Amino acid sequence: MRAIVFDSQVRYDDSYPDPQPKDDECLVRVRRAGVCATDLQITHGYMNFRGVMGHEMSGEVVSGSRLRRGKRVVADINCVCRKCDMCLSGLSTHCRDRTVLGIDGRDGCFADLVALPERNLHELPDSITDEEAVFVEPLAAAYQVIKQCPIEPRMNVAVVGSGRLGLLVAQVLATTGCRLVVVGRNPRTLLFCEKKGIMSRPADELVPRADCDAVVECTGAPEGLDLALQLVRPRGTIILKSTYATDAVLNLAPAVVGEVNILGSRCGVFADAIQALARKQVDVGSMVSRTFPLDRGVEAMAAAADPQNIKVLLRITPSGTP
Amino acid sequence: MRAIVFDSQVRYDDSYPDPQPKDDECLVRVRRAGVCATDLQITHGYMNFRGVMGHEMSGEVVSGSRLRRGKRVVADINCVCRKCDMCLSGLSTHCRDRTVLGIDGRDGCFADLVALPERNLHELPDSITDEEAVFVEPLAAAYQVIKQCPIEPRMNVAVVGSGRLGLLVAQVLATTGCRLVVVGRNPRTLLFCEKKGIMSRPADELVPRADCDAVVECTGAPEGLDLALQLVRPRGTIILKSTYATDAVLNLAPAVVGEVNILGSRCGVFADAIQALARKQVDVGSMVSRTFPLDRGVEAMAAAADPQNIKVLLRITPSGTP
Repeated sequence: MRAIVFDSQVRYDDSYPDPQPKDDECLVRVRRAGVCATDLQITHGYMNFRGVMGHEMSGEVVSGSRLRRGKRVVADINCVCRKCDMCLSGLSTHCRDRTVLGIDGRDGCFADLVALPERNLHELPDSITDEEAVFVEPLAAAYQVIKQCPIEPRMNVAVVGSGRLGLLVAQVLATTGCRLVVVGRNPRTLLFCEKKGIMSRPADELVPRADCDAVVECTGAPEGLDLALQLVRPRGTIILKSTYATDAVLNLAPAVVGEVNILGSRCGVFADAIQALARKQVDVGSMVSRTFPLDRGVEAMAAAADPQNIKVLLRITPSGTP
Repeated sequence: MRAIVFDSQVRYDDSYPDPQPKDDECLVRVRRAGVCATDLQITHGYMNFRGVMGHEMSGEVVSGSRLRRGKRVVADINCVCRKCDMCLSGLSTHCRDRTVLGIDGRDGCFADLVALPERNLHELPDSITDEEAVFVEPLAAAYQVIKQCPIEPRMNVAVVGSGRLGLLVAQVLATTGCRLVVVGRNPRTLLFCEKKGIMSRPADELVPRADCDAVVECTGAPEGLDLALQLVRPRGTIILKSTYATDAVLNLAPAVVGEVNILGSRCGVFADAIQALARKQVDVGSMVSRTFPLDRGVEAMAAAADPQNIKVLLRITPSGTP
């Protein structure tokens, strides 16, 4: 099959071996996939991943489940053991033996086909397009923020970072009625916020006043936490979303002195995101800047690193079809 | 008066100006004072502090309050405005305009006399000695841990760092009945734990298994957080106690991936610590390794930096008396 592979560099491979589904797995034909900051971090060494890249996708079940064959699906990225202490205590996204689609020990979805446990698949309602469905995974991660840190209307909340994830988190937070500001460096994405009625501020014009009850750090860079620590009030909460490959120079003394609560936040519940998309509570369609065919996936990765683009998708149609 | 002063270096001054109490302040004659890791960090530039050092003390009220004159007291270190948003919302330890005894904008207690707001003073019961009372401030900070993160008997808890604060935190945690281990580098302080019936492990013999529900980081050094991140389970809590002057190289990606809750923790409630000492729930007396007179305070600071010593005190008797 065709695939975008990372093995010390990103390359297109037109004869990568087809996945061999295990007993509990389905074979899924990928329709659309999305490039995420984590994919870019992987190319810098994050997780020491090697293999087919990609974890945001929509597709169609080809085989492995009679019930689901032909169904349009999205897929939870954590493939879990259901036996370890984490799985048995209801924290299966933290399974000790997990593999993670295109991130850790499992080939991803920048390919014609992907094998996934049947229990990872979520059927899509007709009201969600293949393009929109690619956002289910990151949108679930955005909803995770308000699951971990309940946000109330009176609260001052800042989103630091106006990239792909920042814009999703901002849209989710906007549904809570909190006093929200998005702080970023990219005029294009700050304009996107303003169009949605979400207040935004360029990072270099901001005078932090340590008055935010909660700050969501989505910059994907270590400097984001520094700014978040300047924005958050004493005893406030920072929700930390950024993962990056390299160590960073930090001083957490302000977090100790201010008794700040720093909450690491990763994956969320797909059902929340599917429902939000079905109800049109979050607009993801207008976040798509460019779409590439699979054989131009290397170019798509470069485009995703360009701040001129918000979201970059891969359109993956069977080889040989237009 | 006599004082230990930091102004780019630590020095003994036998003619430092006496403090001039304001209207709401009492003058307190210091009896005993304790050297803390924060004092050592201040000599490395922490908080850019200049002035009389020291914030752990017991003393006797000399003037400023008819009711309290002659009383033995300890003193809350945060001197607050009672007008800012933090004070008005019950978070006065985070007062926006606070000064902090011997740490931020206010002369400390390594001196014959100190001026403090009357509301900062807590009278001592006779059952607590002057020496023990020096531990009220750090012990209150130790109790803050279980206020911020309730600890239950079934929980696996680790204390990283077996220094002065680590030993106090360990003793407080031991009262909860949790499954506790203290991880440290100092054989002397690990032995102290064992004598108290608290399990201890040398840091270099430990194989972290990411199975602690809570980890209290008390090392005073950036490396402590790295180890804490290896010890804590997914969705577990790290209580961060260490403040240090210099930036550190860190990677918080494990905190994001594991959705770890990192809680900054600073000062606590004096009443908790006074009660614990009065009830002999915590043993601080045997933590005192050496006691110096005030005029040997520079030597006391050096002794406090020596891992052979646990707690180093200053005995501050009026100048001219034995």
